[in-house]
Amino acid sequence: MPDTIDTLLSGGTVVTMNDDGRVIPNGAVAIRGREIVAVGSAEELAEQYLASETVDCSGCAIIPGLINAHTHVPMSLLRGLVADVQLDVWLLGYMFPVESKFVSPEFSYIGTQLSCAEMIRSGTTTFVDMYFYEDEVARAADEAGMRAICGQSVMRFPTPDAASYDKGLEYTRSFMEKWRGHDRIIATVAPHAPYTCTDEIYRRAAALAREFDTPLITHLSETARENTESLQERKMSPVAYTESVGAFSGKAIVAHCVHTDERDWAILTKHGVGAAPCPSSNLKLASGIAPFAGMLQAGVNLGIGTDGPASNDDLDLLTEVHLAAMLPKGVSGDPTIVPARQALALATSLGAKAVHLDHLVGTLEPGKRADIVVLDLRALHATPRYSYAPDAIYTQIVYSAHGSDVRHTLVDGRFLLRDRQLLTLEEERIKRAAQAIADRINAFLSEREANLLDKIVAIGGVQQSEIFEVQVKAHIDDVDAIVAALNGPAFTITKSSERTQYDTYLAFTDSVRGRVRYREDHRRDPGARLDPKYTLTLTVPAAERDELPHAVLLSRARYTAPADRSLRFYREYFQPELVVEVEKQRRRWRVIYKDEDFAINIDRLGHQGEQGLYLEIKSRTWSFRDAEHKAALIAEMLEHLGVSDEQLVKKEYLEMAAAQVH
Amino acid sequence: MPDTIDTLLSGGTVVTMNDDGRVIPNGAVAIRGREIVAVGSAEELAEQYLASETVDCSGCAIIPGLINAHTHVPMSLLRGLVADVQLDVWLLGYMFPVESKFVSPEFSYIGTQLSCAEMIRSGTTTFVDMYFYEDEVARAADEAGMRAICGQSVMRFPTPDAASYDKGLEYTRSFMEKWRGHDRIIATVAPHAPYTCTDEIYRRAAALAREFDTPLITHLSETARENTESLQERKMSPVAYTESVGAFSGKAIVAHCVHTDERDWAILTKHGVGAAPCPSSNLKLASGIAPFAGMLQAGVNLGIGTDGPASNDDLDLLTEVHLAAMLPKGVSGDPTIVPARQALALATSLGAKAVHLDHLVGTLEPGKRADIVVLDLRALHATPRYSYAPDAIYTQIVYSAHGSDVRHTLVDGRFLLRDRQLLTLEEERIKRAAQAIADRINAFLSEREANLLDKIVAIGGVQQSEIFEVQVKAHIDDVDAIVAALNGPAFTITKSSERTQYDTYLAFTDSVRGRVRYREDHRRDPGARLDPKYTLTLTVPAAERDELPHAVLLSRARYTAPADRSLRFYREYFQPELVVEVEKQRRRWRVIYKDEDFAINIDRLGHQGEQGLYLEIKSRTWSFRDAEHKAALIAEMLEHLGVSDEQLVKKEYLEMAAAQVH
Repeated sequence: MPDTIDTLLSGGTVVTMNDDGRVIPNGAVAIRGREIVAVGSAEELAEQYLASETVDCSGCAIIPGLINAHTHVPMSLLRGLVADVQLDVWLLGYMFPVESKFVSPEFSYIGTQLSCAEMIRSGTTTFVDMYFYEDEVARAADEAGMRAICGQSVMRFPTPDAASYDKGLEYTRSFMEKWRGHDRIIATVAPHAPYTCTDEIYRRAAALAREFDTPLITHLSETARENTESLQERKMSPVAYTESVGAFSGKAIVAHCVHTDERDWAILTKHGVGAAPCPSSNLKLASGIAPFAGMLQAGVNLGIGTDGPASNDDLDLLTEVHLAAMLPKGVSGDPTIVPARQALALATSLGAKAVHLDHLVGTLEPGKRADIVVLDLRALHATPRYSYAPDAIYTQIVYSAHGSDVRHTLVDGRFLLRDRQLLTLEEERIKRAAQAIADRINAFLSEREANLLDKIVAIGGVQQSEIFEVQVKAHIDDVDAIVAALNGPAFTITKSSERTQYDTYLAFTDSVRGRVRYREDHRRDPGARLDPKYTLTLTVPAAERDELPHAVLLSRARYTAPADRSLRFYREYFQPELVVEVEKQRRRWRVIYKDEDFAINIDRLGHQGEQGLYLEIKSRTWSFRDAEHKAALIAEMLEHLGVSDEQLVKKEYLEMAAAQVH
Repeated sequence: MPDTIDTLLSGGTVVTMNDDGRVIPNGAVAIRGREIVAVGSAEELAEQYLASETVDCSGCAIIPGLINAHTHVPMSLLRGLVADVQLDVWLLGYMFPVESKFVSPEFSYIGTQLSCAEMIRSGTTTFVDMYFYEDEVARAADEAGMRAICGQSVMRFPTPDAASYDKGLEYTRSFMEKWRGHDRIIATVAPHAPYTCTDEIYRRAAALAREFDTPLITHLSETARENTESLQERKMSPVAYTESVGAFSGKAIVAHCVHTDERDWAILTKHGVGAAPCPSSNLKLASGIAPFAGMLQAGVNLGIGTDGPASNDDLDLLTEVHLAAMLPKGVSGDPTIVPARQALALATSLGAKAVHLDHLVGTLEPGKRADIVVLDLRALHATPRYSYAPDAIYTQIVYSAHGSDVRHTLVDGRFLLRDRQLLTLEEERIKRAAQAIADRINAFLSEREANLLDKIVAIGGVQQSEIFEVQVKAHIDDVDAIVAALNGPAFTITKSSERTQYDTYLAFTDSVRGRVRYREDHRRDPGARLDPKYTLTLTVPAAERDELPHAVLLSRARYTAPADRSLRFYREYFQPELVVEVEKQRRRWRVIYKDEDFAINIDRLGHQGEQGLYLEIKSRTWSFRDAEHKAALIAEMLEHLGVSDEQLVKKEYLEMAAAQVH
């Protein structure tokens, strides 16, 4: 009496991707509920099982569902937005401004639907994501029936869904609690990268991931520059740094790893960290080619990802598998490395280990979940077929098959794609919704010729230097008293200088557009350099602008670039509605107060004599909590310096000077 | 009164690829007969022309038909045959033996049909081919309605369609005469590569190409090894060598150019030579990544090719365009090089220049031929679309579109693909015919465990050392007389040595299987190296075995490898039916006689005393004509050495020894 099952996929070449490399021509896979109950020859299983439904898979390969180990699925909405530009222009000129303006719960939800449709069509059944409003990503993926590890991005910068990382981590915890125990969706935390996070963010994220037993997701060693800067700043590679702050104390998945070496691989292997290079994105953004062969040799749990479709520009994992087989050959001169079977493992058996789901998926074996792809090998571009060699089927899949050859896609035994028809997503509606969002972004970009960030980015060399500045300004009369106090026991002076600064503000009546400051800065110290320094600084108002006790918190995004052109050029280039000049003599100190770093300025403005004498205390921060702490310290410092609350001035120099102009 | 036209493609984004980079959203292309008569806005052209048929292209890009500047179309039949192996195993172990056995007029015809179907489906309208039985390639391409430059391969080796290059060049001339004046098919000559041709082949091929005003096609600088060897042998790069033998005296198209530098590019630019790197193939065969950006900068007429589908494994030119945009970024670290518009030009406007057809195709402009592709941009993987930037359409085509998005393909105004249906080729019949040929090859490969070439290749280090050997053997009595004559004025001795050679022949009763000779070679000269040299030589009988006047021409293919294992190993490995040992004392001279190089041996066999004393005169050649010339010289040499016709022996040592064994 045969056992009853739900579905029998029968008659294709079953590529199990198990440890023995079992391939079954004219094979079958028996599915009951969400699990695979048997894998064998079509004949055997037909005798052994009575299936509610038998699906003829003749001419097809039956393979494990593909695992996309790194992506940012909502970014499908930004596909084709911009290409062929430098990373800073891509990021600061396009991604950041567009994301800060348009990313919303709806954006993450629609973008995920669009991506799920594309992934299901091209054979991906599991993906590992990192983005904002990740709860919406999880919801859309769940509704689409996919398996996903959804990582909520955390950065020290304000993000579209968190004004500070404290808030980001709070949101992440509630997100992880909400999805805890879900069968297909794993909600987790994704500190973005060493260069956008702090030690504390990594420590707190790792603690969260350990508590929930989920993999922490992060980006590591994507660019050569990231590595150089990490070695300069921390004397450690990004991988070593991330280990040092505890990020590998639980499960972890790290994307890119383009610029890693044997020492890094040893760290990844030691902690069982999954690595996910993204070949297309790494090429297109000019990051480089990951050392696939070396990592495999070193025993790293190596997966593969598409990265976000804004830099790929698609979610077709077979393309990445193809590149993973081809690129190492091309750069090494050895055509035998990363052979087709090993390349396919990156997206299946080994990829499952990389994303810590190998107990559930990645191979076709009894007991595993029925995440299965049926790939039609009868297309023109896959004709003819050879079978004399045991590895021929891998060659056909990796070098000939396209994502568009996927015929059926199942997750947990459920058809998400059947005969190339999506069953859980309404393709046309999603395409319309996606285009509607893109149309708004397109209109925004069409009109932003007036956008200063865009324009400043276009001229190059821009660095984002800070997000929040804690700042207090006070009118003072007695410079000597301040200087004497500064030299007192409360402060440690680390640097001091005297300067004449000629600032020209290029501003607009609509202050939301921000303003550009052109500064000519002359050192007046004996022995200091004689050449003046010219800088261009764009300050754009940020979403939040709070006051803290005793001090004004000026919340802002600031971008600085060397000003290597004339003021005339910038006036013509930015076409400001208001030009305000401020000349000042500045004495500047960098001081340590209670272990924190502050800048103190005493400025004498233009020709205003004693009336134009001001004290400024400033510090940078990336977090509200830290800002509160620094505001309290500033209050103490004001007392040490003998400045009273009545002396405080809540205006910037531009405003004071502009008031005089008018 | 509007002009009448045949077809109006209307409503898509027209990407003209003309010099001004004109892009027309909601544009149209008017076609009359085989020509484009107008390109403009849909509205304008609808007013201006009365079309027999208007085709709605909304949501699509209308682009010039793609130009595949290098391929071997019949090799689609060998797609997926073998992968992930060293080049020598790929070539000597698989391609050469399979081609020599299976390539026939039918093979070239069916393989071309399969490839034309795939190319038309993925938007290629023009291809540049190099293969055997090229007349069949031309016939199939013509019937399919495509535009093609068909290059008949010429090599110094025997090929499937020519036993010598003399015959190959004769066939090529008649092939070129046959197709002269055809509207879409250009028949031309394709000397394979510097390392498979001779100076004379290049000179004669160039003369043919000049006579017919067609482009000569060749492979250049595909691998680093090719360059190293060219520099060693000729003190010139392959490009410089090819120029030196006159190959660029007319039009030329050179494939690969992976390992080229500024000096090579200057040569290519000077002669207007078209270059065609093949990114996928160059990666997969581990050749490297062509210097796209440098070649473009240098002004080379740069096209792009897929190479043959045995090393790609498809004919999807958009994949190659995609790689041409991505790879240079990834290896240079500069994401701005080879931007999308420039990458698309490789397959259109610039590619047309590379293949010397820019007067006909490559752009959408009035007067050009109506070779047009309509690419649907509404697929999931190309959703959403941005239009704010002038170059957005190139980004979409190069980074998002797939070959499978091609909706219509026209050549000379005729639809070859319409709504994704092939109109000139029967897809299912072609697939069946292709699979039938592949099944025969598959059976051959399944069974060839007994094939010695396969086995000798599998153990590595094999070199094909010669094809034809002109050889005479004579029984002699008086060694001193021979030696005295050799030292006479007729000969110039360049080298001499004395050896003891222990040869063991591993042979089979079916001589067609060939035989393996294991040789232990001891130098006996004073001061010569003491270590014996061990070599393994496979000799397989070739198709032709002719006698020449006065001498025996032993026509054969010979493969030699260092024998780094024991005789025992080889006996077990090859399992010969017959083992014959021959021991001989050899005195060996290399002499120049009338400007030609010969080897002369005086061999004393085993223990046979004076009865076993033989003279051998040998020379290598690649051509019958040259063999005749050398045979005549050998006859003269025999006279100088005092050897009469009666002394000639028409047996090999193996046969003589085997006769004694039996």
